[in-house]
Amino acid sequence: MSILCVGSVALDSVETPFGAAERVVGGSAVYFAAAATFFNPVQVVGVVGDDYPMADLDFLASRGADLSGVERARGESFFWAGRYHYDLNTRDTLETRLGVFADFEPKIPDGFRDARFVFLGNIDPMLQHDVLDQVRSPQVVACDTMNFWIDGNRDALLALLARVDILMVNDEEVRQLAGEANLLRAARWVQERGPEVVIVKKGEHGAILFAKDWLFYAPGYPLEEVFDPTGAGDSFAGGFMGHLARAGSMRPTDLRRAMVYGSALGSYACERFSIDRFRDLSDRAVHGRVEEFRRITAFETQVSVEEHV
Amino acid sequence: MSILCVGSVALDSVETPFGAAERVVGGSAVYFAAAATFFNPVQVVGVVGDDYPMADLDFLASRGADLSGVERARGESFFWAGRYHYDLNTRDTLETRLGVFADFEPKIPDGFRDARFVFLGNIDPMLQHDVLDQVRSPQVVACDTMNFWIDGNRDALLALLARVDILMVNDEEVRQLAGEANLLRAARWVQERGPEVVIVKKGEHGAILFAKDWLFYAPGYPLEEVFDPTGAGDSFAGGFMGHLARAGSMRPTDLRRAMVYGSALGSYACERFSIDRFRDLSDRAVHGRVEEFRRITAFETQVSVEEHV
Repeated sequence: MSILCVGSVALDSVETPFGAAERVVGGSAVYFAAAATFFNPVQVVGVVGDDYPMADLDFLASRGADLSGVERARGESFFWAGRYHYDLNTRDTLETRLGVFADFEPKIPDGFRDARFVFLGNIDPMLQHDVLDQVRSPQVVACDTMNFWIDGNRDALLALLARVDILMVNDEEVRQLAGEANLLRAARWVQERGPEVVIVKKGEHGAILFAKDWLFYAPGYPLEEVFDPTGAGDSFAGGFMGHLARAGSMRPTDLRRAMVYGSALGSYACERFSIDRFRDLSDRAVHGRVEEFRRITAFETQVSVEEHV
Repeated sequence: MSILCVGSVALDSVETPFGAAERVVGGSAVYFAAAATFFNPVQVVGVVGDDYPMADLDFLASRGADLSGVERARGESFFWAGRYHYDLNTRDTLETRLGVFADFEPKIPDGFRDARFVFLGNIDPMLQHDVLDQVRSPQVVACDTMNFWIDGNRDALLALLARVDILMVNDEEVRQLAGEANLLRAARWVQERGPEVVIVKKGEHGAILFAKDWLFYAPGYPLEEVFDPTGAGDSFAGGFMGHLARAGSMRPTDLRRAMVYGSALGSYACERFSIDRFRDLSDRAVHGRVEEFRRITAFETQVSVEEHV
């Protein structure tokens, strides 16, 4: 099943306690595609300036990312600079320059309009609406957002929820959106406005999927070395949607498995700067990590009392 | 297998967004015993003042808690007052009065000295040493501690680690103890100093057990109503040790299951003030919640490629 992904294609300068990377490829659409193409082809729509090192994305194209929807505009690419703290759970944004992204108006190429799976990266909800207006008959629409839009364009965002099947946000965002500290009730609040599924990403603490009458908890994979957490959430989304599109359905068994594949890809994203960990990552390694998730969480419950006496 | 538990027996005044409770029974030993007695008898050692409503603990005694090691001293019982914030993840301590607890010197009754499973609640590491000096041949020793002792009595605490099989602390504490932000490496640091097993409690985010060459992650149970989180960590410890003592071993399969039983009891502790949720909690409900943990975390990994095409 085809996946359409619309989001930022950016250059990031990142400092972590382990080192620094200057103007490396990043952005939600790039991380998403890097992860999703492990499972399924991805059609990418975004915009870059004339300074963008498109050759750094060649390996994505070779793996099944169609980058023909990435517009090249005159000017600077979206640039973000940030510094992570000692524990890597908090970061300071040092600089954001929107560049050509400020005037981004997603134009979905005709060949992309029949996409059945759609991922709306974190952009203005008005633009997310525009994307959906151009897609003919999506089967599964997932979207991300952030505090900036929850505060600043709330009406458009609430209207968007009615058109979305899966909302993927972090714990702070879902609490802010619903005005509700309890995650279970916050997820229900969102579900009442459209999305059948709400996925709450909690960084190192994992992610929870809330469906109508069940939920699933994927732990954060305990990494010995978190090198750079940038893009982990979008890589999670890519692994999740990639797996789901390959399965072609939203059955509970597919959603559960997609949560674990998403978590695995999100954990790999943290192991190097930019999307570098995905360049030589093998399918075998991904499946191996998924198997480790099973070992980390599996336990036996059927115990006879006799066994314990 | 008998469990000996040494810790605080306190009176708590708690305010949460849902209400307030005045001078209700609490303390690490009380929560521990309330949870552990679902699985196994517990011998409790602590101290209370002449103001303590011992009758409120009668139901613990009826379930298998031996309270004969709770000394009654002249003066006030340990008193703690706290207020939880809106999201219940942070709290302010409004007042702490040690009372008779300030002069607590644990005296282990002779009948308790053959305990095979020992839980050292969060008290001065010097006193934790004193307890171990009085126990004849413990099979499994678990201990808790806090930032106050990590900073204030570090040498005694490090010496204690060599005598301990399981260290149970929260994520902030293990990071502080090891001087290491990464949980996996922090746990290894602790393991090199004695404990075979390190359990890191992360509140609503669950708990991770680090063994020598494997680990296990129990999610936080998503509660619709977190009424009062006080004592959740000690209830976790009680459920964990209670289940382990009933199993009588530290086999990986027992440790994993104990993590889930601990998590279940920890989640129940949050549903009412004090230990009130445990008063009428049935074994059947506990097992039901453990089964829910399985449903929340289980997924199938064995998928043929064909299934997806």
